[in-house]
Amino acid sequence: MSPELLEWSRPRLARVEAELAACFADVQPVALREACQYPILTGGKRIRPLLALAACEAAGAPFTEAIDAAVAVELLHTYSLVHDDLPAMDDDDLRRGRPTAHKVYGEAVAILVGDALLTEAFARIASSPRLVAELALAGGARGMVGGQYRDIQNLAHDLDSLVLLHRLKTGALIRGAVRMGAIAGGARDLEQVTVYGELIGLAFQVADDVLDADQDAGDAGPPSFVRLHGRDWTAAEAQRLARTAIDAVADLSGAQPLVQLARFAVERAH
Amino acid sequence: MSPELLEWSRPRLARVEAELAACFADVQPVALREACQYPILTGGKRIRPLLALAACEAAGAPFTEAIDAAVAVELLHTYSLVHDDLPAMDDDDLRRGRPTAHKVYGEAVAILVGDALLTEAFARIASSPRLVAELALAGGARGMVGGQYRDIQNLAHDLDSLVLLHRLKTGALIRGAVRMGAIAGGARDLEQVTVYGELIGLAFQVADDVLDADQDAGDAGPPSFVRLHGRDWTAAEAQRLARTAIDAVADLSGAQPLVQLARFAVERAH
Repeated sequence: MSPELLEWSRPRLARVEAELAACFADVQPVALREACQYPILTGGKRIRPLLALAACEAAGAPFTEAIDAAVAVELLHTYSLVHDDLPAMDDDDLRRGRPTAHKVYGEAVAILVGDALLTEAFARIASSPRLVAELALAGGARGMVGGQYRDIQNLAHDLDSLVLLHRLKTGALIRGAVRMGAIAGGARDLEQVTVYGELIGLAFQVADDVLDADQDAGDAGPPSFVRLHGRDWTAAEAQRLARTAIDAVADLSGAQPLVQLARFAVERAH
Repeated sequence: MSPELLEWSRPRLARVEAELAACFADVQPVALREACQYPILTGGKRIRPLLALAACEAAGAPFTEAIDAAVAVELLHTYSLVHDDLPAMDDDDLRRGRPTAHKVYGEAVAILVGDALLTEAFARIASSPRLVAELALAGGARGMVGGQYRDIQNLAHDLDSLVLLHRLKTGALIRGAVRMGAIAGGARDLEQVTVYGELIGLAFQVADDVLDADQDAGDAGPPSFVRLHGRDWTAAEAQRLARTAIDAVADLSGAQPLVQLARFAVERAH
């Protein structure tokens, strides 16, 4: 992250972390409360909440207007990680160096924890019909769940189907995050942040493919942008997507955090 | 069901079934659409949607006002069945004589289908902040998920903890169904239907315990009302709960369907 982005992020992240830490504080029994809180408090980058807050500020509102939207998006993202890590899905034992929820609490509790986080995401934004509609569209069968379905069923085999998979699996919620932030900030027009969100969602995934390829030189594995088009094309594509995303919001007066976040999305993939 | 209740139910059930059948009709690919629709189209009794519609009518509104609330409650109930049936949870192969979702589509898809149904439930009522808040409270860690957690962790060992478990696991959503129906019907006061919903939720479970005991005479197994207090006490308690529920709404002018549904809840357990 650039120094400017770090400075902008610090108070916003602190607020998001405090709100996330307070989720489920009233839930009984304590063992269920702790299981629900465990996957939330991971030290993740919180890129989706930051995007929501940045989009709120690009709409001319203080970031505090979008705190509930930001927390809801992160809760929904976190539930998807808990369920994706399950033995029946990706069967991951570790996430960010810590045991996954099902390794700590067992598979049944991990399923319930994911369900609780998903439900809590909607509780958090219940007062705003537009936010509920956005989150449901981004997270459901027409969005993230549809992308995860395509992933586990190996439905991506060429560039078009791979782009569709990622648009749904990760792109839909990133698009939703910026739209929800803009809505919470009272934006009159969602067109520019929507284009930004769609491009940046794909840019993240394309950049991740470059990083994955640098760590693992093998040709085997599921389809990826690098496997389909090579590393150089993919790295250039990530930069192109980020530049186009920046262009989409460049004339909004408070867009600097969105611009910085777009650069951050691809800075690791050169 | 009494002839009056059957006659009342017929057009309402037809509408609910039609709405449920139309859910996910636009989802691609078709295989995901069909997997999402499979657990919805089960020929269940649809008791929760009927309770929502009855509560709407007890508020003096036509049942059509509560269709979205009724569908959302049934979608949430259905997701909970799909997840409860998973190998890591109750590991059930059959539900109402048909293979469970994970037997047909595999465990990973069944997890995703449950997630999609839960998300769709909120999409369905997004326009009403009060309905979203009610459903999230009824379905989340402070309601149904909390009850299921207590069940799988065997936290019920006496009458008080068993009542709490059932109040959360099945009672919270039945209470939510009547409250949501009353809210959708424009009820000014939710107190009477709330008392009704809490009592009827427990009555269903107590009556189920009697039926389970009649089918399986063994003393082993998890705690139940029959195992703790005997069959006669439990059957009488179901009737007492239903009568008290009926008393709670008796002076509402359009309460006849709620009264009939309360009788139906316990008619099998004498």
